[in-house]
Amino acid sequence: MAKRQLTAKSEDMSKWYTQVIQQAKLADYSPVKGCMVFRPNGYGLWENIQKSYQTYLDEMEIKNCYFPIFIPMSFLQREAKHVEGFAPELAVVTHAGGEKLTEELVVRPTSETIMYDMYGKWVQSHRDLPVLLNQWNNVVRWEKRTNFFLRTTEFLWQEAHTAHATKDEAVDLMYEALESYRSVVEDFMAVPVVTGRKSESEKFAGANITTTIEAMMPDGKALQSGTSHHLGQNFSKENAFNISFQDGNNKTQYAWQNSFGLSTRIIGAIIMTHGDDEGLVMPPKIAPTQVMVVAANKDEAVINHATELTKMLKKAGIRASKRVETTTSMGWKMNDCEIEGIPVCLIVGAREMENKEVTVKLRYNGEKSSVKEEGLAESLKDTLDDIQTAMFKKAKKNVENLTTDANSYEDLITAMNGDRGYIKAFWCESEACEKAIKEETKATTRCLPFTDKKGSVKEESGQCIKCGNDATHRWLFAQAY
Amino acid sequence: MAKRQLTAKSEDMSKWYTQVIQQAKLADYSPVKGCMVFRPNGYGLWENIQKSYQTYLDEMEIKNCYFPIFIPMSFLQREAKHVEGFAPELAVVTHAGGEKLTEELVVRPTSETIMYDMYGKWVQSHRDLPVLLNQWNNVVRWEKRTNFFLRTTEFLWQEAHTAHATKDEAVDLMYEALESYRSVVEDFMAVPVVTGRKSESEKFAGANITTTIEAMMPDGKALQSGTSHHLGQNFSKENAFNISFQDGNNKTQYAWQNSFGLSTRIIGAIIMTHGDDEGLVMPPKIAPTQVMVVAANKDEAVINHATELTKMLKKAGIRASKRVETTTSMGWKMNDCEIEGIPVCLIVGAREMENKEVTVKLRYNGEKSSVKEEGLAESLKDTLDDIQTAMFKKAKKNVENLTTDANSYEDLITAMNGDRGYIKAFWCESEACEKAIKEETKATTRCLPFTDKKGSVKEESGQCIKCGNDATHRWLFAQAY
Repeated sequence: MAKRQLTAKSEDMSKWYTQVIQQAKLADYSPVKGCMVFRPNGYGLWENIQKSYQTYLDEMEIKNCYFPIFIPMSFLQREAKHVEGFAPELAVVTHAGGEKLTEELVVRPTSETIMYDMYGKWVQSHRDLPVLLNQWNNVVRWEKRTNFFLRTTEFLWQEAHTAHATKDEAVDLMYEALESYRSVVEDFMAVPVVTGRKSESEKFAGANITTTIEAMMPDGKALQSGTSHHLGQNFSKENAFNISFQDGNNKTQYAWQNSFGLSTRIIGAIIMTHGDDEGLVMPPKIAPTQVMVVAANKDEAVINHATELTKMLKKAGIRASKRVETTTSMGWKMNDCEIEGIPVCLIVGAREMENKEVTVKLRYNGEKSSVKEEGLAESLKDTLDDIQTAMFKKAKKNVENLTTDANSYEDLITAMNGDRGYIKAFWCESEACEKAIKEETKATTRCLPFTDKKGSVKEESGQCIKCGNDATHRWLFAQAY
Repeated sequence: MAKRQLTAKSEDMSKWYTQVIQQAKLADYSPVKGCMVFRPNGYGLWENIQKSYQTYLDEMEIKNCYFPIFIPMSFLQREAKHVEGFAPELAVVTHAGGEKLTEELVVRPTSETIMYDMYGKWVQSHRDLPVLLNQWNNVVRWEKRTNFFLRTTEFLWQEAHTAHATKDEAVDLMYEALESYRSVVEDFMAVPVVTGRKSESEKFAGANITTTIEAMMPDGKALQSGTSHHLGQNFSKENAFNISFQDGNNKTQYAWQNSFGLSTRIIGAIIMTHGDDEGLVMPPKIAPTQVMVVAANKDEAVINHATELTKMLKKAGIRASKRVETTTSMGWKMNDCEIEGIPVCLIVGAREMENKEVTVKLRYNGEKSSVKEEGLAESLKDTLDDIQTAMFKKAKKNVENLTTDANSYEDLITAMNGDRGYIKAFWCESEACEKAIKEETKATTRCLPFTDKKGSVKEESGQCIKCGNDATHRWLFAQAY
């Protein structure tokens, strides 16, 4: 059979992106505008991301729960900035059970309001705090322009929502959550990120502070990949959701809150960061299939041996699978593995069996070698670890190559007309300059980068590249997805 | 502190049910009518049910995926009986993104139509079959009267949808799925069930055959707990979703399909089957916490030791947690464990520490004993297994006591005026008799019980208890939840 047509990533990444997703059977367009279908290869990736991140939630003692998908419209209106931010994107249920509803219900775009209404009921005393809850669920934000994983009307995510007795405790957890995002994205997905604080205009609707992890894609555009917010007392105050408690001195206080979320959008970052002209390249730690055992021919002995090897690898804790069907050629099987980005292919043929070895082919660099069957599982585990490390290193290098300093507005324009990427530049932190820069160059403030895990930033002195006024920080600019 | 007020289960199970759910923090009422909030104790139970059932899905090689929550209204109308069944329960999105939609979108009540539209695109050749997909998701059915877990407007479930080249292959899998439900519910949740076939009037909207697992609750009412359907070619035919393929002889054929689902409703069965006057009783295999380590006093050495023991048990693979906070008494802690139904409480005090032992208290029978610390984890694992076995045995006995034969209509009426329960009786299989029996006695046909895993039924000859006409099967009647 002929090799499938796949646009080269190096030629047209955007075209490559939509093609590779469909050819690797990660996802498909759905009949509902802006919604996508997660096929098993794509959903399996999300399941592994969930498993990975769940360990961080456990570490932070955040418990999973589930709240209704519907939110009464009036709830959103209790926090002015929140409703302002989400109103244009809402999907509204007006009829149900054959009748018009007395109050319209919104399909949750995020769950602050429905959750905090319950927090208000549950929290009475300081003993009821902290409240540390998380949901793995689906949310809906009506989007005009959509793209697989990166921007879809419905997406899957986790949203954690906490309430604390003190501001310090809340802010500390906001940073801890941000660090958990950095770690899971870098250590499991091999996608390098920058941590930092969002500007006033880029904050979450209803937050006092928004912190972010930003990832740089090979096309020089940045992808906001996870955000951790401190909501202050905006939602807890009396005229919002009244999450109040008696402190140790029997005085009424309002809770301090955070929310933070990581979505299926991150799958887009994984695809773009690691893929190549041949297809996807999956990081071993989250690959649904880590090792594919391929039968080199249709010989029964070969197929049986491939089946046995697969079982052995599974037993050893490797996510192994086999391709031994007799209806497709070995070339076709290898091509499937390639486009799906399976980290390691293990080829079994007559020659290999005779020598009690297998041919190992690595997806990320194409290297092929012979490996003895004895100690195979342990050797493959090392190989998978090595691949993970190498992929992160390579991605990190790419991002470094896409990072420049701009000492003048001209520098920024030059960069934006070239490879784009991250541009570090002094900015006076006025909304006017931020807006002008965006309109003239498409570069937006991605974040003020942190220098440690506690939200420290580098204090410097310079002049805003736009207006020349004094500036105290170099911000990270980039065109955003 | 005073013991909480809990209505005795033996006095008023329905009142007990709603109280115990809230007091054990399984769930709470939500501000959205008919929707509930799953709190960590309740959601944790669902997560363990998911993990348990996932192993069966893996065994059947059914892959997880995710489809949009929205379904175009016109899709539902493509299968006449399907839309007829679901139309009264639909929640409808009419506006989104600030505009009126050109076609109304339904919040999925089940995903046959949206999934099969894609199956129609994906399936071309017999090589594309079988399609074996599952979703773990949320669905919405607008209900007039709701009850925690048992009937809620939004609920969580898995819905598997398969397409096959032959009817035999599909029907075989329908029975395999039914058996997987029997096994997961009996072996993990310790809830005894009957497997059988639904009558024509009780079939799923759009199915040719509906098979079911039915559970008998202590109040003598039956709970339909999971259903596996054979859909024939109702959805695959040309004027529905056109899931057609070229067979080996290049002839166009339509796929044969199944769907099957198990929902959070099963949590209601677990609560009612096992709970007692003191609160919940959780089966160890799905209990979010299997062993709770309780510090007998506020002594630092005791707290430290309890903490160490908890760590050790976790490491040994037991879902252990600790209650060592100094703000509540030991009595309060034990009371919490009791109402939450934690299978094993492990009490650590000064005396226990001195003797290098712990006091073990079992929830399901209240037994207390001293157990040596040496080999504790292994000994507790045996204890948990024993509890699981004993709970199932006890539940099975209760169901047997609630099962009677009715040889006349009077027998059935007598049973329905007494303890209710399962009533086995000859029925002529006419809708008229079924309807009359329901109206007059509240007893409905739950199923025609299977005698094996392949759908065999006992052929007998007798007279319908209602009309006296010839009947060939004894059906299982009961009042349904």
